Amino acid sequence: MQIITLTSDFVVRDPFVGTMMGVILAINRRVHLGDLTHEIAPQDIFEAALAVEAAIPFFRPETIHLAIVDPGVGGSRRALGVSAEGQLFVGPDNGLFSFLFAEPGWTAVSLEASAYRLRVVSRTFHGRDVFAPAAAHLSLGVPLDRFGPEVTDPVRLPWPGAMREGDALVGEVLHADRFGNLVTSIRARELAPLGPEAALAVEIGDEVILGLSGAYCEQPPGRLGTIVGSSNRLEIFVRDGNARHHLGVTRGARVTVRKR
Amino acid sequence: MQIITLTSDFVVRDPFVGTMMGVILAINRRVHLGDLTHEIAPQDIFEAALAVEAAIPFFRPETIHLAIVDPGVGGSRRALGVSAEGQLFVGPDNGLFSFLFAEPGWTAVSLEASAYRLRVVSRTFHGRDVFAPAAAHLSLGVPLDRFGPEVTDPVRLPWPGAMREGDALVGEVLHADRFGNLVTSIRARELAPLGPEAALAVEIGDEVILGLSGAYCEQPPGRLGTIVGSSNRLEIFVRDGNARHHLGVTRGARVTVRKR
Amino acid sequence: MQIITLTSDFVVRDPFVGTMMGVILAINRRVHLGDLTHEIAPQDIFEAALAVEAAIPFFRPETIHLAIVDPGVGGSRRALGVSAEGQLFVGPDNGLFSFLFAEPGWTAVSLEASAYRLRVVSRTFHGRDVFAPAAAHLSLGVPLDRFGPEVTDPVRLPWPGAMREGDALVGEVLHADRFGNLVTSIRARELAPLGPEAALAVEIGDEVILGLSGAYCEQPPGRLGTIVGSSNRLEIFVRDGNARHHLGVTRGARVTVRKR
Repeated sequence: MQIITLTSDFVVRDPFVGTMMGVILAINRRVHLGDLTHEIAPQDIFEAALAVEAAIPFFRPETIHLAIVDPGVGGSRRALGVSAEGQLFVGPDNGLFSFLFAEPGWTAVSLEASAYRLRVVSRTFHGRDVFAPAAAHLSLGVPLDRFGPEVTDPVRLPWPGAMREGDALVGEVLHADRFGNLVTSIRARELAPLGPEAALAVEIGDEVILGLSGAYCEQPPGRLGTIVGSSNRLEIFVRDGNARHHLGVTRGARVTVRKR
Repeated sequence: MQIITLTSDFVVRDPFVGTMMGVILAINRRVHLGDLTHEIAPQDIFEAALAVEAAIPFFRPETIHLAIVDPGVGGSRRALGVSAEGQLFVGPDNGLFSFLFAEPGWTAVSLEASAYRLRVVSRTFHGRDVFAPAAAHLSLGVPLDRFGPEVTDPVRLPWPGAMREGDALVGEVLHADRFGNLVTSIRARELAPLGPEAALAVEIGDEVILGLSGAYCEQPPGRLGTIVGSSNRLEIFVRDGNARHHLGVTRGARVTVRKR
Repeated sequence: MQIITLTSDFVVRDPFVGTMMGVILAINRRVHLGDLTHEIAPQDIFEAALAVEAAIPFFRPETIHLAIVDPGVGGSRRALGVSAEGQLFVGPDNGLFSFLFAEPGWTAVSLEASAYRLRVVSRTFHGRDVFAPAAAHLSLGVPLDRFGPEVTDPVRLPWPGAMREGDALVGEVLHADRFGNLVTSIRARELAPLGPEAALAVEIGDEVILGLSGAYCEQPPGRLGTIVGSSNRLEIFVRDGNARHHLGVTRGARVTVRKR
């Protein structure tokens, strides 16, 4: 059975997600449906992109990822189907898949063929009427190029990274997770050239945190620490606490790493 | 594989939903289980009814919908199995399925046969002990009339609609969705006789909104608009905002449409 | 198909749960995945234990339960696989499975075999890297003793029960559920020797509640009542209300039952 994952800002209070499930199963009943998350902040394209990016390395090839944060629904934004990294992606052309376009080897199409949409397409819910049917037909093996014309200029969001400034490496906070851990734009492989982890100092706001931890529980309760987290990025945490509340910072806050 | 959907006010903090899943899979492992929503406001029968009503047109025939908002559990309220619109429904007889009884062609039974309940039926959790087993046995093909005696007088809630008052069409707010959009009791097909969408004016509270939008993004950010939403009803929205907060209205608020 | 349930404090805002799903399906695609709950309060091992304990009697034999509340991730705490009560359990060795160890007949191993972990094991997310792969390999039929050495001294939390004090039975509040009902440590079978339910009086805070109810709806709206709830424990409720708010009590509050 093929796997289809779903990501959105729909929460699950309204039956939006369940309705997409109904549409998919009406087209292909032999499919495994799973939620990545539906708790993306309303209309936060970047948070959705981060969620999908973090999860996809752990899915088997040819998994189909349906991701919908869609403030432009019903307007002129295109609907995309993308093949990249051995998997398939379906969602609006608003930057949500920017991270796929950073590496060569992707192909994208504009989902236009009426055969692969619901008969009636509403102005407000393309998740149900356009994207869910596309994912279901992809899971049946319909080739991507049958869905519409090729797209070579998809929308790309600026994607935060890390930059060298003299001896220091400077990045930013991307996201606070459920535990209040701050995930940064600095990747583990960018830290390595600075020296051994124990010899690094991380600056954020007025705080300087000395040495990376090997595990959350290496810090005493209530203490700030840094760690290479599960998405291979530098994270800032408070043991048994909440770093976001502790530091009072939000997305975009500057993070500097230097040798101490 | 048969499909069973689940709708409730259980949230997913407690393992109530997971337990119902365990009961269903112990009876029939070859079934597709999917959540419509478990975030119905506690004991809000009407909100559950709206959720199920909105989703079912998108499910394949013979899908089984299990819906449980059950303040009368353990008392004298009956447990219903209903066949309507080519699908099957299981839940308490408290008005949750009112919308099914508005059209002819339904049949209902009282779920009483002990063969299709758990051996021990608690006083507080019929979702697990009565309704989940019934849904599972239905998914195995047990005919509805085997579950108990016919019910011809199920409980019906008054169902809000729209009324002509002179030249105007008057309805009410049914529900505020996750995005703060206000879903009204006025259906698209009732708007058509008033004239072209651009020529309509919608009144709610102290506001008059001129002309329906074709898409959310036709309005400038922060501006009130109206649109025919994904459930084919008139909706009131704020572009990139929250109409419920903006207008400060709740369920039952009067909505008037007239030619401007 | 085997069944794997998932319980955690991950919520579903971040893609942690979805990623574990991806890992499991990459190892065994023919498995039924279902959530018990991911809304356990952050790092509340006891609440997770209660959730799993309440749900497992309703699952078929050989179901695999993956439960992760893991403040000690990356430290020296062991990773457990447990066989008990005809089912299988996977999670951290921090007391989460205490309730399984109260009865004889369980066996446990330390999940150490690298063949049944992801190739790279992070320091922060063993749910993905250790526990999800173990559950998936168990679902393929790998015997428990292949995963690592036997564990005979798993961590056990003190488990609240009920005690006789003279004529009275004294227990405590374990948990407030989604509806504000207070679930206590007093089991139905411990109440029986005190006399018929109608002849009992339950004391909590300054309140004395006379007689157990047979159903929530036996009480008038807004009134405190007691009942044997769905997990066969004494519960305190407010009809159409919230007993936790009404009484202002939390976990650990003393509950006394005596003959009135």
